[in-house]
Amino acid sequence: MAEGITAKKEKDFSEWYTQLLEKAELVDLRYNIKGFVPYREWAQISIEKMFRMMSDELDKTGHLPICLPTLIPEKNFKLESEHVKGFAPEVFWVTEYGNGEKLEEKYALRPTSETAFYQMYSYWIRSHKDLPYKRYQRANIFRAEGKMTRPFLRAREFHWIEAHNAFATKEDAEAQVKEDILMTNNTLLNKFAIPHIFFERPQWDKFAGAEKTFAADALMGSGKVLQLPSTHLIGQKFSKVFNVKFIDKDGSDKYCHITCYGPAISRIYGAMICMHGDDKGLKLPFDLAPLQIVIVPVQLEKERTKLLKKAGEIKKELEKNYIVKIDDREDYSPGWKYNYYELKGVPIRIEIGPRDLEKKAVVIARRDLNLKESVNEKDVVNYVNKIAKEYTGNLIKQASVNFEGNIADVKTAEDMKKALQEQKIIRVPFCSIEMDGAKCAESIEKYYMAQVRGIRADKKEKTSGNCVMCGKKAKEVVYIARSY
Amino acid sequence: MAEGITAKKEKDFSEWYTQLLEKAELVDLRYNIKGFVPYREWAQISIEKMFRMMSDELDKTGHLPICLPTLIPEKNFKLESEHVKGFAPEVFWVTEYGNGEKLEEKYALRPTSETAFYQMYSYWIRSHKDLPYKRYQRANIFRAEGKMTRPFLRAREFHWIEAHNAFATKEDAEAQVKEDILMTNNTLLNKFAIPHIFFERPQWDKFAGAEKTFAADALMGSGKVLQLPSTHLIGQKFSKVFNVKFIDKDGSDKYCHITCYGPAISRIYGAMICMHGDDKGLKLPFDLAPLQIVIVPVQLEKERTKLLKKAGEIKKELEKNYIVKIDDREDYSPGWKYNYYELKGVPIRIEIGPRDLEKKAVVIARRDLNLKESVNEKDVVNYVNKIAKEYTGNLIKQASVNFEGNIADVKTAEDMKKALQEQKIIRVPFCSIEMDGAKCAESIEKYYMAQVRGIRADKKEKTSGNCVMCGKKAKEVVYIARSY
Repeated sequence: MAEGITAKKEKDFSEWYTQLLEKAELVDLRYNIKGFVPYREWAQISIEKMFRMMSDELDKTGHLPICLPTLIPEKNFKLESEHVKGFAPEVFWVTEYGNGEKLEEKYALRPTSETAFYQMYSYWIRSHKDLPYKRYQRANIFRAEGKMTRPFLRAREFHWIEAHNAFATKEDAEAQVKEDILMTNNTLLNKFAIPHIFFERPQWDKFAGAEKTFAADALMGSGKVLQLPSTHLIGQKFSKVFNVKFIDKDGSDKYCHITCYGPAISRIYGAMICMHGDDKGLKLPFDLAPLQIVIVPVQLEKERTKLLKKAGEIKKELEKNYIVKIDDREDYSPGWKYNYYELKGVPIRIEIGPRDLEKKAVVIARRDLNLKESVNEKDVVNYVNKIAKEYTGNLIKQASVNFEGNIADVKTAEDMKKALQEQKIIRVPFCSIEMDGAKCAESIEKYYMAQVRGIRADKKEKTSGNCVMCGKKAKEVVYIARSY
Repeated sequence: MAEGITAKKEKDFSEWYTQLLEKAELVDLRYNIKGFVPYREWAQISIEKMFRMMSDELDKTGHLPICLPTLIPEKNFKLESEHVKGFAPEVFWVTEYGNGEKLEEKYALRPTSETAFYQMYSYWIRSHKDLPYKRYQRANIFRAEGKMTRPFLRAREFHWIEAHNAFATKEDAEAQVKEDILMTNNTLLNKFAIPHIFFERPQWDKFAGAEKTFAADALMGSGKVLQLPSTHLIGQKFSKVFNVKFIDKDGSDKYCHITCYGPAISRIYGAMICMHGDDKGLKLPFDLAPLQIVIVPVQLEKERTKLLKKAGEIKKELEKNYIVKIDDREDYSPGWKYNYYELKGVPIRIEIGPRDLEKKAVVIARRDLNLKESVNEKDVVNYVNKIAKEYTGNLIKQASVNFEGNIADVKTAEDMKKALQEQKIIRVPFCSIEMDGAKCAESIEKYYMAQVRGIRADKKEKTSGNCVMCGKKAKEVVYIARSY
């Protein structure tokens, strides 16, 4: 038997995740810098596919790829005061080279790249004809996290795409935020099978230097939410500091309106495996699985030649469209193999034994529903096509049920407390997401260890109630949850 | 007129390259850290394609992708003494985080990743069944170069793939070097159109920590060679230091034989644009061009509707297989556009004017041969297919003529000097590429400012002559050239 996960996801999510990471061979925690974690092939193959899907989405919407340096001079970094205040505690600094020679200036390992992008934009953008100016880069990002790190979900080095766009008007910038939300839906939901809600974050929880922040929250194990891609209305603050101007049609100089969008692919990967994994191990969206179909001939000692011939025929047919492997190793039992490929999240397993040969059939097991069935030889391709087509949709469905069923409407602090204990996301009337609501949010954090996630970005929700904390007339309906 | 390159490649290569970089908008030299250069979209699009082609090649030969941390603890880095001696002067160190807090240990920004890979290999490799163990990563690499930097060709941050493979035997490792040379041929020559020779480097010029180094040299402008992908027989030195062992079939513990292969994609991109560019600007292999076909309607003021209709029809047909754009801007003249797209290295330009409409023809200009021709409307697709098919081959041919014609056989130091002045690569009898030949190589470096590049890796060349420097009986035929 392959060594499976012994912790239960429902009972001890944290231990389950740690075992999943190790036993499915996704990362190795033995690398000797805290919070820096090697990704092994079974994770990296999927992560590469996710990068391509996200880049394709950006390419389709008129973004072009560029590549900026990893290091940012201290003086760039310090130009925008809110930004530096927000990020300074987390910056790693390069101060030396060679055998201890001091550099003339300190360089930040980018904790995000606004201060590199916008300096260059001040050179690259000249005229209204250059706008919209939409560029992105794939980059590794470094943050000296104070909170406890966790592979993929919160790490000191992570891997993302960041798109920085410049516009002539505020309206164009706002339209970009809508496009970012749509792109997130096309990838995060449709490709990575992660149901989520986009919130406008409260003013006290926005990106350091932005006017407004919009972020997708997904519901993870143990009822906590996890922030996934966020997009920000940066406004003109950085434009003014970095001098990102354009000559408008009327000949006048104007500052650009900027947005930035940052899907952290490695973090999304972490969310994805948390969301879909079960006590047997990984489940992966069909197009992201490093191996899609494994064929396991059983009782090889009996009809070896015939079994391998049949397995080869099936493989040949299926590998026209899928990633397929035959596992004919004799030093592992079929049972060991079944457990192993379930642990690894291989979507489809085909078993063939001597008796199947006689019946001209095979057994097909599917990981989305954890079911298996005997299928006539001649129907194998159609049957597999059908599973492939509905597989990712099934993962979305399973995750959505979990999500929708976990939102609770409450009106009082008492009910809120109870619902949070039941691992729900709370929908409540709340005084305000402007700075005057910050005090109520602090109390919620202090007494319930939960955060105000914001108001929905996809639809306007109205309230006639009073704020769950201060009792003043509520301006907003907000969502409150515990978060990673 | 688009502002073209004013320097001549043949006369002032260095100025030509600088202008090409700027005017074709490939990089921006204004970023404020020395040797760190932003890549703009026109470069990055091609570089991304090159990464995919190289990764595909590695995938095909059984390598799997992983992703290791960018930072390497000082103590790992210092474990292998030759390695640390070779790389220490070039390492950037992270020593602080936040507002000046000192880290407990210094971390190297990876100048190469042996000392991260092999630590993990000691955990991941257990048995002869795990071998060969072939893994690669795409990574950004940092070196505090002492020599003058130049965008793409020599930078303080660059972008590569590094493959690290572990084997049971020396023979398996040697076979991997052959596979690496073949992979280089499949990409560097066939896809990137760069003719090159693979040399076994002399012992005094090998990778720090390796037993043998093999490297591809390409012939660049002004007769200098540039080192492109290299592959190294690392042997067992690192295995012993990092404890990379496996249990062999007989039950005994053995150290792995390691190889590493490092195609520096950003550097290859630089070599590629140097090699193929001309006084009009870029030339790019057909599959790497960000835009493959531009359609320019001319005299738009005359037959605007008809011209745009025709252009649209042609685009619709061609974009089934190619990346196509129509440039119908009226504030730029056709002449400006022709120069602009030639500068940008767009392989094919289709011009359509009112007179072409009448004749039911278009003019097709091709950048590989810098020719243009009138082509009947109904033949456009076939004509374009033909150009697309032979385009990259033409670039290879042009570069090969240059390469082969630049190798000179000489027997004396006197002739060598002359040939080097004529910007030739020299083929000469030489005493030895073991350490006892180092003195002669030093003299060549000192008196002729040229380097012994090594002996050919692809064929054995015999000599009966005497060493061009010391006059002793020559053991080898070596190649000598000036290099970047």
